[in-house]
Amino acid sequence: MKVGIIGLGLIGGSMAVDLKRKGFADEVLGVEAEPVNAAAAEKIGLVDRVVTYEECVSQSDVVILAVPVGAAVRMLPDVLDKFHEEAKSGKCDRMVMDVCSTKERLAHSVRYHPMRRQYVATHPMAGTEYSGPWAAMPGLFDGHACIICDSEESSPKSVRTAEALYDALNMRTIYMNASSHDVHTAYVSHISHVTSFALALTVLDKEKDEKHIFDLASGGFSSTVRLAKSSPDMWTPILTQNRDNVLHVMDTYIEKMNAFRQAIADSDEDAIRSLIEDANKIRRIIR
Amino acid sequence: MKVGIIGLGLIGGSMAVDLKRKGFADEVLGVEAEPVNAAAAEKIGLVDRVVTYEECVSQSDVVILAVPVGAAVRMLPDVLDKFHEEAKSGKCDRMVMDVCSTKERLAHSVRYHPMRRQYVATHPMAGTEYSGPWAAMPGLFDGHACIICDSEESSPKSVRTAEALYDALNMRTIYMNASSHDVHTAYVSHISHVTSFALALTVLDKEKDEKHIFDLASGGFSSTVRLAKSSPDMWTPILTQNRDNVLHVMDTYIEKMNAFRQAIADSDEDAIRSLIEDANKIRRIIR
Repeated sequence: MKVGIIGLGLIGGSMAVDLKRKGFADEVLGVEAEPVNAAAAEKIGLVDRVVTYEECVSQSDVVILAVPVGAAVRMLPDVLDKFHEEAKSGKCDRMVMDVCSTKERLAHSVRYHPMRRQYVATHPMAGTEYSGPWAAMPGLFDGHACIICDSEESSPKSVRTAEALYDALNMRTIYMNASSHDVHTAYVSHISHVTSFALALTVLDKEKDEKHIFDLASGGFSSTVRLAKSSPDMWTPILTQNRDNVLHVMDTYIEKMNAFRQAIADSDEDAIRSLIEDANKIRRIIR
Repeated sequence: MKVGIIGLGLIGGSMAVDLKRKGFADEVLGVEAEPVNAAAAEKIGLVDRVVTYEECVSQSDVVILAVPVGAAVRMLPDVLDKFHEEAKSGKCDRMVMDVCSTKERLAHSVRYHPMRRQYVATHPMAGTEYSGPWAAMPGLFDGHACIICDSEESSPKSVRTAEALYDALNMRTIYMNASSHDVHTAYVSHISHVTSFALALTVLDKEKDEKHIFDLASGGFSSTVRLAKSSPDMWTPILTQNRDNVLHVMDTYIEKMNAFRQAIADSDEDAIRSLIEDANKIRRIIR
């Protein structure tokens, strides 16, 4: 199988490494718009060949869009258009999948496309706060969950290929529609990033003596603020595209912060304790 | 040296293990008010002997208060009173130190105490989100920072003993006054806990289908929400005692959240990107 990956960052690059290593791909083609990143990907040997976007789309059995979701929304209809052109002059049973963190706008962008069934919407839930080809690593996906959205809109063959691909990456697959996906990820991923960004801004804004932050920052602070290192290229379009869900969760979050603020301002130990005890229930869910 | 530790939880228990293991203490006495925890500490063998509070204070060369800061504020003057009684009928050069996360009220509670110089205010900046004697572990403090506050208020001999103790635990010592300590820890520790508690409450409140949280929670969410498992016994008095500093930091934090909220509500990609880029500067500080 020939796999073409568009975008050789953390996710695309890590997929490239493991799909080749696990034998799912005989050959991995890579596309990377940023010249420095393309050179790095070639130097590191993430892919077999760095090719143009057109070469990748015309030659790959599976095209993977591993670009920020703003770019993916523009690219996905174009890839399906190219498949459509090809289908007019013969059979085209190649497929495209994305790996983006928001799904509704992507789904919307190709809802009535004649080649919609050659597209599978997927979201491998793995990553780190680092980005770029140098952040790619073997085993990144190992043991994590991958969401496949709206699978009934894709051809059974395309879905089976996507499932086999994620099986090769040792991921568990979960199925839901694009709309549920975006609500759920707002809760378990997008809000975490926003709270980390806000925490970093708070500490950077107020703490002029950086030496002290560095000295005092314990493991707790580092783990809470870790996601604040995440890439603006990736996160700006996620927060824009999942705007309504993210705003809804942020409003709840700000309410909870205000409840805490009030309890502390009142020096109300019973109220503070009760809020912490309720928060502790997360133990049932996160080991 | 005979070390008496009052409170055999995560911090007290871990100190007990390593002070004995590293040879700083010839004998470790332990006091634990909670019968279940006391039994566990004996069973695990954290200390050589579980004794009463009075026995511990009268027999130990170094008394360590490893209880929540609300209890420590009541206990510290009492320990110094007992030292004072003893000094009246002879010499008392034994010392007491606390390991609490807020310092101003503790400092205030013994400011004019005749035995003030036998007390050293310390804060080993290490921990996990778990509590109780079963959370104690060797090496917990290894390589972390320990703050010693208002060291000029303590006798040089007491300070040297505290320094030697933290040296045995392989901690770096940093010196500052109690007031600066409380400001800095509000920024690098207390606010992180509040944001984690609020995140846990948000997700628990809204996400009724817990199965989905569990399935979708990636490493990013787990790391951001990890501190929400922290003990209410420990954190209720910290947030109360450091009220003004914590409220100040929370207000800045809520401002930053509102700035993010506005940028997302406006779908203002430039503003979102700019906030994320500013937040990314935390990379300079946290590796």
